[in-house]
Amino acid sequence: MASYFITGTSRGVGLKLTEILAAKPASEVSVVFAAARTETQALKDLASKSDGRIEIVSIDITSEQSVKQAASKVEQSLGDKGLDVLINNAGIMNYTPDGIETMTDLESSFTTNVTSAHLVTSALLPLLKKGNLKKVANISTTLGSIGMASTYSLFPVPAYKVSKAALNMLTVQYAQSFADQGFSIFSLSPGWVQTDLGGASADLTIDQSANAVLDVVFCADKQANGKFFNIRVAGWEKAEGLNQYDGAEPSW
Amino acid sequence: MASYFITGTSRGVGLKLTEILAAKPASEVSVVFAAARTETQALKDLASKSDGRIEIVSIDITSEQSVKQAASKVEQSLGDKGLDVLINNAGIMNYTPDGIETMTDLESSFTTNVTSAHLVTSALLPLLKKGNLKKVANISTTLGSIGMASTYSLFPVPAYKVSKAALNMLTVQYAQSFADQGFSIFSLSPGWVQTDLGGASADLTIDQSANAVLDVVFCADKQANGKFFNIRVAGWEKAEGLNQYDGAEPSW
Repeated sequence: MASYFITGTSRGVGLKLTEILAAKPASEVSVVFAAARTETQALKDLASKSDGRIEIVSIDITSEQSVKQAASKVEQSLGDKGLDVLINNAGIMNYTPDGIETMTDLESSFTTNVTSAHLVTSALLPLLKKGNLKKVANISTTLGSIGMASTYSLFPVPAYKVSKAALNMLTVQYAQSFADQGFSIFSLSPGWVQTDLGGASADLTIDQSANAVLDVVFCADKQANGKFFNIRVAGWEKAEGLNQYDGAEPSW
Repeated sequence: MASYFITGTSRGVGLKLTEILAAKPASEVSVVFAAARTETQALKDLASKSDGRIEIVSIDITSEQSVKQAASKVEQSLGDKGLDVLINNAGIMNYTPDGIETMTDLESSFTTNVTSAHLVTSALLPLLKKGNLKKVANISTTLGSIGMASTYSLFPVPAYKVSKAALNMLTVQYAQSFADQGFSIFSLSPGWVQTDLGGASADLTIDQSANAVLDVVFCADKQANGKFFNIRVAGWEKAEGLNQYDGAEPSW
């Protein structure tokens, strides 16, 4: 009977998370608030077939006013219940092919990937405090690991890397703040996924990544608070090359 | 005969760095470009007594146009010479006493503490490439270490911590990009200092911190590229409590 709020559900991993959760029995998942700036046909189709278990929430996560309106709508829908799980999934990644000194998307990446997670989390916090599970999963990436930076030196996405390192610190700051109220607030790398963001040559299907993300979310307890997890995908635990999806904790 | 460009020189550690460097023999330091938004009387007095070895550069480091104008002025002053050392020292730290969910300075802190370092470094890069030393020191803080976050959980400066973690990743991204051109680009924690930012009860005098910062800058070679250093201060190497100034590398 858990309720979920997920950002970035118009496509990719966010859409698939919504689909998987809505297909669970009502004893496990009561409602999925599918937050999106753009209501794609795919999301609308999914919601219309969900018997009301998916509620699309129109939101611009970079706008404090829009986020507050979305939180208000969720509160009305939940009635006297709380919100159980928040997944801050929305994010952007731009390429800077001509050298870091030409980077122009540092602030826009920070706004979408970090500030938005803060705005959404803070706006939903009163509802999360009333929830039973009190889980907040921030979708980060191993590309945001400063300790692993040498592994990803050939990926020319410096603003994305900087924003995700910042998101990891934001995660830890939130985790420290609400540890004594029973929260589990953690960062999670979804792997390199065949989405519009990841491209067709990525390691994992959307289905693989979304299921692996939910495995972490379902299992996360209070020990997960303030941590950074990689997903675990069968067959990828000891992969050679850049990416191992072993469920371990990447360095910060 | 090294040339320096330092931001945030109107007061505090930046002003002291300028003072110490300008007092060195001309065989060691040729010129210090003291960049500041506000030309304080203290900075003007220092420059006027420096026999032209301190050049005040008026700058708003959050404005790309202002930064480019400053770089142009430095280029004119240097003639056919390059710039040897850049110290990105300017920064802000605000308190968020009422809980992270009330934080409103995430973006402004990022702009001043991260974007500005990018704007200044990218604008001065052509001059740094012509320089002999090719050193860029980004003044960070151990409060920006995600791995040490539990140590500083009681310091309610979340936006500052997030911005400095982001600055550390920016440092590493720049370091990777210019390693093969002989650069030494590193982050450096100046300690907790008795400045307007650090407050009167801080550990170190401005003089102690500035000298320790310069020790790291002087000694940094190509092995320093992409690293994060703590300062070393005599008597503080094994201090009990929060802060040890042992010259070691904090975790990311």
